[in-house]
Amino acid sequence: MTKKYELLTVGNAIIDILVTVDEQFLIDQKLEKSAMKLIDEQETASLYSKVGEATEKSGGSAANTAIGFGKFGGSVSYIGTIAKDQFGTVFNHDMNAANVDYQPIFIDDKPTSQSIILVTPDGERTMNTYLGASTDLGPEHIVKEQILAAKVIYFEGYLWYQPPARKAFGLIAEMVKDTDIKIAVSLADQFCVDNFRDDFKALIADGTIEILFGNEDEIKALYQTESFDDAMADNAKTGVLSFITRGAEGAEAQRGSEMAQASVDPVYNIVDLTGAGDIFASGALYGLSIGLNLENCTKLGCLAAREVIQHMGPHPRVDIIKLGQQAGLIG
Amino acid sequence: MTKKYELLTVGNAIIDILVTVDEQFLIDQKLEKSAMKLIDEQETASLYSKVGEATEKSGGSAANTAIGFGKFGGSVSYIGTIAKDQFGTVFNHDMNAANVDYQPIFIDDKPTSQSIILVTPDGERTMNTYLGASTDLGPEHIVKEQILAAKVIYFEGYLWYQPPARKAFGLIAEMVKDTDIKIAVSLADQFCVDNFRDDFKALIADGTIEILFGNEDEIKALYQTESFDDAMADNAKTGVLSFITRGAEGAEAQRGSEMAQASVDPVYNIVDLTGAGDIFASGALYGLSIGLNLENCTKLGCLAAREVIQHMGPHPRVDIIKLGQQAGLIG
Repeated sequence: MTKKYELLTVGNAIIDILVTVDEQFLIDQKLEKSAMKLIDEQETASLYSKVGEATEKSGGSAANTAIGFGKFGGSVSYIGTIAKDQFGTVFNHDMNAANVDYQPIFIDDKPTSQSIILVTPDGERTMNTYLGASTDLGPEHIVKEQILAAKVIYFEGYLWYQPPARKAFGLIAEMVKDTDIKIAVSLADQFCVDNFRDDFKALIADGTIEILFGNEDEIKALYQTESFDDAMADNAKTGVLSFITRGAEGAEAQRGSEMAQASVDPVYNIVDLTGAGDIFASGALYGLSIGLNLENCTKLGCLAAREVIQHMGPHPRVDIIKLGQQAGLIG
Repeated sequence: MTKKYELLTVGNAIIDILVTVDEQFLIDQKLEKSAMKLIDEQETASLYSKVGEATEKSGGSAANTAIGFGKFGGSVSYIGTIAKDQFGTVFNHDMNAANVDYQPIFIDDKPTSQSIILVTPDGERTMNTYLGASTDLGPEHIVKEQILAAKVIYFEGYLWYQPPARKAFGLIAEMVKDTDIKIAVSLADQFCVDNFRDDFKALIADGTIEILFGNEDEIKALYQTESFDDAMADNAKTGVLSFITRGAEGAEAQRGSEMAQASVDPVYNIVDLTGAGDIFASGALYGLSIGLNLENCTKLGCLAAREVIQHMGPHPRVDIIKLGQQAGLIG
């Protein structure tokens, strides 16, 4: 059958509350820079009261990837849970406005999830997430027809923190087992890797995860080594198709002994790194969907990520199809 | 007694939903460019479904002016009504984060007001406002101590559309009658002037309104003339202190025969005019509060407005105190 979606992504549906702070603020609040911390309602209120004026944008790792993929013109669907509240309305609108086929799944007793994202002058983002409705995502929200309509299904690693979402992952993995649907997972952050290393490694080893996304810190955490080269050498042995981002140094793709690299043009004004990895994944996955080789997939990912770090918020503002065309990567 | 607030502003508390559209979209939707249109819940849902991804920011004309005044370092308070919902939480946070002393007044049965603001490539904004909780602002929310603690009380003209808010204005005008507290009013937009011309003119004539804010179109609408010079001549006769913005041409101040002008440095990349008039008012009022002459008040207003039109959203992003210092306007 003809597939309806090149990509389906699954993740926590979140509204980003973006605010700029100085380095000292992170120190004063004892926050781990660049990481994602889960906080409760009271901690959210306390942190919010200490920060300046904010901008609200739709966010969520896998949701960002879906939006980027949709902006490339790819057919894409999304699974995530929201509430019937104002943030939920905003999330639902923005997904569909970016050509993501999102049928909202509403949760009654929790508000839409939100993350206070602290952006420092160097563009780094430190996320403080209050998970509400998104945590209820579970196997009961998985519809077989939607799963089987996709060519690639992408999960954000953050889902592993939530037992019902892990069950949903297991159910989907079971559904696609004897199909040619590929499962992709992003490693989210190094703490997520530290928490669920054995699970991720087992899923790579048994071939459940066929496409892996991560950054330098995450891949080193996965293989518990200080050396990026050692981590990549260990990773090569698994044969998993991997896209590893390296900040200003660009990104690398790897599949067994096959390697590809992309550099990234210098960015003189990094504003906000929020969504950089997610949008890199949009580009790489879109490249795969139209049959680009690994080098060009990696280049397309870098190109899209480079755009998104030059302004506040996790979604491309310019026409990324045109960017890809100008770079000679897409027709 | 020492006044607690240099400024108190009163207006509709609104969350802006900012989205870029092309010129054709305004034509297709039969919208009057640059104006504010009141729409109901159904029209809001319909319009929202037709526009792309948005950014959410706190807004509201008089609220913007309060935020700008607070960012200049002035002591400022605000009166406006919100709901206990997510948009209300955002509004309350952003006001207080900008050093505006806002004690939220909560309305139970309506959501926080919102405006879908359509920004065209020329930076013009066309507002489609769904008034919720903000319409309930009335005399019952006016606390005499708060009123008498201010030196200047600023009202946005949009309030005239709401009978309870007009009553609140009347009550405040009565309270400050025999004090040295000054009432300032912004004319909001030309349709607002068309609707309430007689009321505004009477309030100017009897000296209730001592400071008037408007733009070229609004002052022409007030005096029902095609000629700006004629309008200003008519306005001069009233003796009211007026600040009139003229877009790229800068602004003029007038008090009887006294006149002052400020030009504005060219802006090569106008992004979004939302809040330009409101933030001009912040600068002019702040200038008055520190004893600047009319020319420098007008210059300070232009300087702040010029900053705000170079990015999305109605509030200054850079340090406007520093801007004013660099221009030699403030110490």
